[in-house]
Amino acid sequence: MQNITVILVQPQMGENIGAAARAMLNFGISDLRLVAPRDGWPNERATAMAAGAFETMPDVQVFDGLKDAITDCHICMATTARARGMVKPVQTAHEAAQSSIAPYESGERIALIFGAERAGLSNDDIALCQSMITIPTNPEFSSLNLGQGVLLIAYEFWQALRDKTTSAPSCNNTPAPQEKLEGFLSRLETELETHDFFKSPDLKPTILRSVRNMFVRGGLTEQEVRTLHGILSAFTK
Amino acid sequence: MQNITVILVQPQMGENIGAAARAMLNFGISDLRLVAPRDGWPNERATAMAAGAFETMPDVQVFDGLKDAITDCHICMATTARARGMVKPVQTAHEAAQSSIAPYESGERIALIFGAERAGLSNDDIALCQSMITIPTNPEFSSLNLGQGVLLIAYEFWQALRDKTTSAPSCNNTPAPQEKLEGFLSRLETELETHDFFKSPDLKPTILRSVRNMFVRGGLTEQEVRTLHGILSAFTK
Repeated sequence: MQNITVILVQPQMGENIGAAARAMLNFGISDLRLVAPRDGWPNERATAMAAGAFETMPDVQVFDGLKDAITDCHICMATTARARGMVKPVQTAHEAAQSSIAPYESGERIALIFGAERAGLSNDDIALCQSMITIPTNPEFSSLNLGQGVLLIAYEFWQALRDKTTSAPSCNNTPAPQEKLEGFLSRLETELETHDFFKSPDLKPTILRSVRNMFVRGGLTEQEVRTLHGILSAFTK
Repeated sequence: MQNITVILVQPQMGENIGAAARAMLNFGISDLRLVAPRDGWPNERATAMAAGAFETMPDVQVFDGLKDAITDCHICMATTARARGMVKPVQTAHEAAQSSIAPYESGERIALIFGAERAGLSNDDIALCQSMITIPTNPEFSSLNLGQGVLLIAYEFWQALRDKTTSAPSCNNTPAPQEKLEGFLSRLETELETHDFFKSPDLKPTILRSVRNMFVRGGLTEQEVRTLHGILSAFTK
């Protein structure tokens, strides 16, 4: 599980950092990173709760911001208790682990990112991530603490990455109607033509296909297509 | 999950009983039975650790022996950290939950039985059970406490027995390392600033988050990031 990383963003209580370390190491994950822990690092209370985990793990790395903590990560998954108003795929812990099998096997580093105890992750932090993970719980009693969240997600990844079954992933967004996207893409092509972007006519179809792939794959919403139009206008007016 | 029962045999610490109650109720299991709890029942420390679970659950039942606690149970599963020298089927938590689907659907009561914190279940208690459940962990660091064991097993049963309707698979790309994407996004922000794109400073963070979301979500490859740089250069040279 060398390429799995757990990141705790602004953890408040040392006890929870220790519980998280113990939880993840039970399932073979030993790369723990902290972003701006409230009480600094190292932390005696964390050590007391870790049941010896820190002695077996590499040194915990500490960063000022989440952006700095994920520079070498290929896939960033934000854990969240509530659906946010963000356009991101939301997966259950089980689905997230299953969908990580292929990238994990091709050597990509996967970061599992947890927010502060009460507040969770900020929208800015979630924006750094490709997708969100949620743990389905009893709607009448949903009360998982940080250590429990880390435990369950680490468990699912351990189960999935040891078992290595296969799944057939696909995107799950709510994209704009195709014509909206086409409108943007054809305007982009015209503007690129005007700005002499296509040095070689032979390569033009390949480049256009690549550009299309990027935008199609993300499943852009109508609002996002409007934003892209705005950006294009800013550069071309 | 009415027909799932959790039984703690000779639990020592009230805190662990509370943690077990909280853990199981998160996954819809509300029938908790205790066999000869060391400190009697009720227990203030249990209440303090339960995060309100006892207020939502039916009364905890207390018994002198495991045999009395399981009279109405159809299937008894003994949880164990180590394989014992007993001739019983041993299943992982996942397998045990999967194999419970059919009996559960036909109305049988299933008991998940946990032993004392250190000693675990006695051989006599295990002899009352049809099968054993074990949770596969990191062989180099296997340190699950009672509350964590209940959490993981309750989670597997909840996953198996509740309706499996959701399936939200993710994108399957080979994304560039995070720092490559950051390089493009920060350049884009600078250029947008230069081109007077942000009419209102108040909206700038929201717009930037939206732009980031678009590009992060697609899981851009390194080649695609290079293409985006090229497009930006064409418009800004």
